[in-house]
Amino acid sequence: MKADKRTEFERMFHPETVAVIGASDHDGFSQALMSTKLRDSLFLVNPKYKTLHGKRCYASILDIEDGADYVVIAVPALNVSEVLADCVTKGVKTAHVFTAGFSETGLHERKLLEDEVKEIARGRINLIGPNCMGIHCPRSGLAFIPDASTGEGSVGVISQSGTFAEQFLSIGKLRNIRFSKVVSYGNAIDLDCPDFLEYLAHDRETEVIALYMEGTKNGDRLKATITEAAGLKPVVALKGGVTSDGRRAASSHTGSLAGSPEIWSSLFRQAGVIQVENFDELLDATLALSCARLPAGKGTAIITNSGGFSVLETDLCAKAGLEVPQFTEKTTSELRKMVPVAGTSINNPLDAWPIYYNLPGKPGTLADAIRILSHDRNIHSIVLHFDEVSYLRRVLGDAVEDLLRDLIKVMVEGCRYARDAMGKTVMVCVALDAYSEDEEDRRYHLLAKKAFEDERFPVYPALGASIKALFNLYRYSSQRLHS
Amino acid sequence: MKADKRTEFERMFHPETVAVIGASDHDGFSQALMSTKLRDSLFLVNPKYKTLHGKRCYASILDIEDGADYVVIAVPALNVSEVLADCVTKGVKTAHVFTAGFSETGLHERKLLEDEVKEIARGRINLIGPNCMGIHCPRSGLAFIPDASTGEGSVGVISQSGTFAEQFLSIGKLRNIRFSKVVSYGNAIDLDCPDFLEYLAHDRETEVIALYMEGTKNGDRLKATITEAAGLKPVVALKGGVTSDGRRAASSHTGSLAGSPEIWSSLFRQAGVIQVENFDELLDATLALSCARLPAGKGTAIITNSGGFSVLETDLCAKAGLEVPQFTEKTTSELRKMVPVAGTSINNPLDAWPIYYNLPGKPGTLADAIRILSHDRNIHSIVLHFDEVSYLRRVLGDAVEDLLRDLIKVMVEGCRYARDAMGKTVMVCVALDAYSEDEEDRRYHLLAKKAFEDERFPVYPALGASIKALFNLYRYSSQRLHS
Repeated sequence: MKADKRTEFERMFHPETVAVIGASDHDGFSQALMSTKLRDSLFLVNPKYKTLHGKRCYASILDIEDGADYVVIAVPALNVSEVLADCVTKGVKTAHVFTAGFSETGLHERKLLEDEVKEIARGRINLIGPNCMGIHCPRSGLAFIPDASTGEGSVGVISQSGTFAEQFLSIGKLRNIRFSKVVSYGNAIDLDCPDFLEYLAHDRETEVIALYMEGTKNGDRLKATITEAAGLKPVVALKGGVTSDGRRAASSHTGSLAGSPEIWSSLFRQAGVIQVENFDELLDATLALSCARLPAGKGTAIITNSGGFSVLETDLCAKAGLEVPQFTEKTTSELRKMVPVAGTSINNPLDAWPIYYNLPGKPGTLADAIRILSHDRNIHSIVLHFDEVSYLRRVLGDAVEDLLRDLIKVMVEGCRYARDAMGKTVMVCVALDAYSEDEEDRRYHLLAKKAFEDERFPVYPALGASIKALFNLYRYSSQRLHS
Repeated sequence: MKADKRTEFERMFHPETVAVIGASDHDGFSQALMSTKLRDSLFLVNPKYKTLHGKRCYASILDIEDGADYVVIAVPALNVSEVLADCVTKGVKTAHVFTAGFSETGLHERKLLEDEVKEIARGRINLIGPNCMGIHCPRSGLAFIPDASTGEGSVGVISQSGTFAEQFLSIGKLRNIRFSKVVSYGNAIDLDCPDFLEYLAHDRETEVIALYMEGTKNGDRLKATITEAAGLKPVVALKGGVTSDGRRAASSHTGSLAGSPEIWSSLFRQAGVIQVENFDELLDATLALSCARLPAGKGTAIITNSGGFSVLETDLCAKAGLEVPQFTEKTTSELRKMVPVAGTSINNPLDAWPIYYNLPGKPGTLADAIRILSHDRNIHSIVLHFDEVSYLRRVLGDAVEDLLRDLIKVMVEGCRYARDAMGKTVMVCVALDAYSEDEEDRRYHLLAKKAFEDERFPVYPALGASIKALFNLYRYSSQRLHS
């Protein structure tokens, strides 16, 4: 990316002034921007209002003396051309067209409308969209949904779908993913995926790139930019429209010609991109890549309190391409000293419920167990499964809170040792069902989750998710070793 | 199953008296049984206590005048033989040995201990276990964890793992799965999976059988009973230990010799059993089979409010082996009358956010849309995706509650029409993240979930889960057609 284009993108993501054309008392853009540092540099435009959100509301962008660096256009499709022309007149640098109802409808007259918009923009203004959410950038205050993750972080997201960009922000907030920049680019009649890839590839604040796309208008350029980006930092990609029914759906969604799934997979493989299969996997892999250490090998230790899950987890690891090797004799004999024999399995998987209870007078803690097995030469990663609240509540009653806090402390301690002193990858599953209505139980689980997150461990609500994310970490790590 | 064996099993699942040997003030068995109708027919045994839970506590089973029909043995492994011998003396019909620490430890002396227990039981008493949770039967009041699902239903569960039996009950409660009988059978030194399969196959209260197993000691008998059962009602099976690491784990867990995955898959296929890949899929398929109508074909309609998800859902369906066919022209033209063009896609998938908002003055409701497409000849099933609370809250503020209640009513109405009048399979996804901490948001989603459950629709927190469950319904349905 040339220096002047880079400067242009820097300005696009960090505007000094922003306007929302088509603002209303409930549009998400105004609400989102009113809650960030751009609040005082925000202009609202809608001829229907005199004031909005306690601010003056302008009838047109032409009425704003100095215009605005970044403009959100959220007016009906038939009015977009006129509003965009005003933006050009006013010298606006970037227009983000939120409005949908263009080529993606499959209607000829809507395609013509899109061409008109494209023609107005060409060479005069940077255009993002139409049919998208635009840019979210915590550092500058640009934001497209209220209450989204606003802490600055290292994850860059490029999404053709607006919903996925929103979901990345809102679920990311629940999962402790912090973002550098999030872009939803929709129909891409001007700025396209490769433009944003090029920018994020060289963006110092971005350490991981997550990508959702349905198609591209310039395969060669995409290939070049994605290969460059993946050479510089991890790129995880989800391709929508990989089946023939899905391709038809993608065409209705963003007007994309989706291409054959084989072409895409081979492009991703050659470029060194981690391709994933669904949105959850994209989110989960991104979280892992943003905070976990890369595993030095396939050897995975599983620590759980359930025999059934220990078997299935092992199957999941092995199916994913990881290994659950036996511990060395030294590890096993040390563990045996502290874990009673009944109802446990002192091997890998380590099914060791008694040490989860951390009850006084017992010979060892979960921290001791993690410490012991983190010295095992066959082990590169540890997956810790926590789901032990209901039994403890039954046994301890009100005393459970103190015990749980101690147990959580001990687990985090062990995991820190494994990661920081022994260089192991640590993945945590704090199992919680989405529909759980036991508020006490939820509170305890969220307590554990936060304790791990505070120490920058990746935490997942389901076992399968933690193992799949570990596998994607391993894919990235082994690919780097072999390239 | 012969009549006398059937009678024996009926008594085992419906005992008149129950004793817990090794009861304490926090053991789950006593607590669970104290909350069911067996409360007054429950005897607690432990020489350490005089009273427990406000009841007399006996020093030995020998002190209970009439003994008990069903005994839970929860004493240390080294004491099991003696306690079991007392049960035999006392004429107990069924002993469930909860205690672990036998052959599954891999220790020779523990194998000998297990053989001793087996020898005492042989021909004298029905033994379940050791190393398991035993029986949960809502109709009789038998129960093994407190606060489990106690509503009577049609799902029978046979699980070698105790945790999975527990999880089936506790997550089943959250997912509206109702049980006839749940058995966790552990090391199976006497009663084994085929015994329970035989019983549940002919049990009138059981309409669906869910199975988790790690291995068997009698492959031929398992094959015969599972084939018979699957010929009578849907059987969904999860096999633990399908990888070589997993087989080793299974051997530590229940002492099972797990056999090659190909042998198991071929056994399941030949028997007409729906084999699934993980525990969530087992639960999800069981829910669907217990309440949804079987689909008449592969044609699936997707209704969602997000273009990105509509594309991925379509991919998921197609990858799973379903189809997302285009609507007929008639369907499309009728839908077009009520759904505005911008940001929507009036085809299958139907990406139609405006009708989710159900705002007054709009030309159609979600119920109308569902009605229209349920008349489409290409459509056999409908997957409805609901995740539309945050936008509505933003737009409507406090008025959202009333609108949501109306919207939910309208959605349920449409789904009932599709199912009851048009014979379509209807799957519902009320999307909710496990870690969501927005209590208001959770409340609205759970409101929607309950409304669908009250009308016996299967509801899933994640899209992938609803589609996978639909596919498993379809597998069962098409297999029945071809057999």
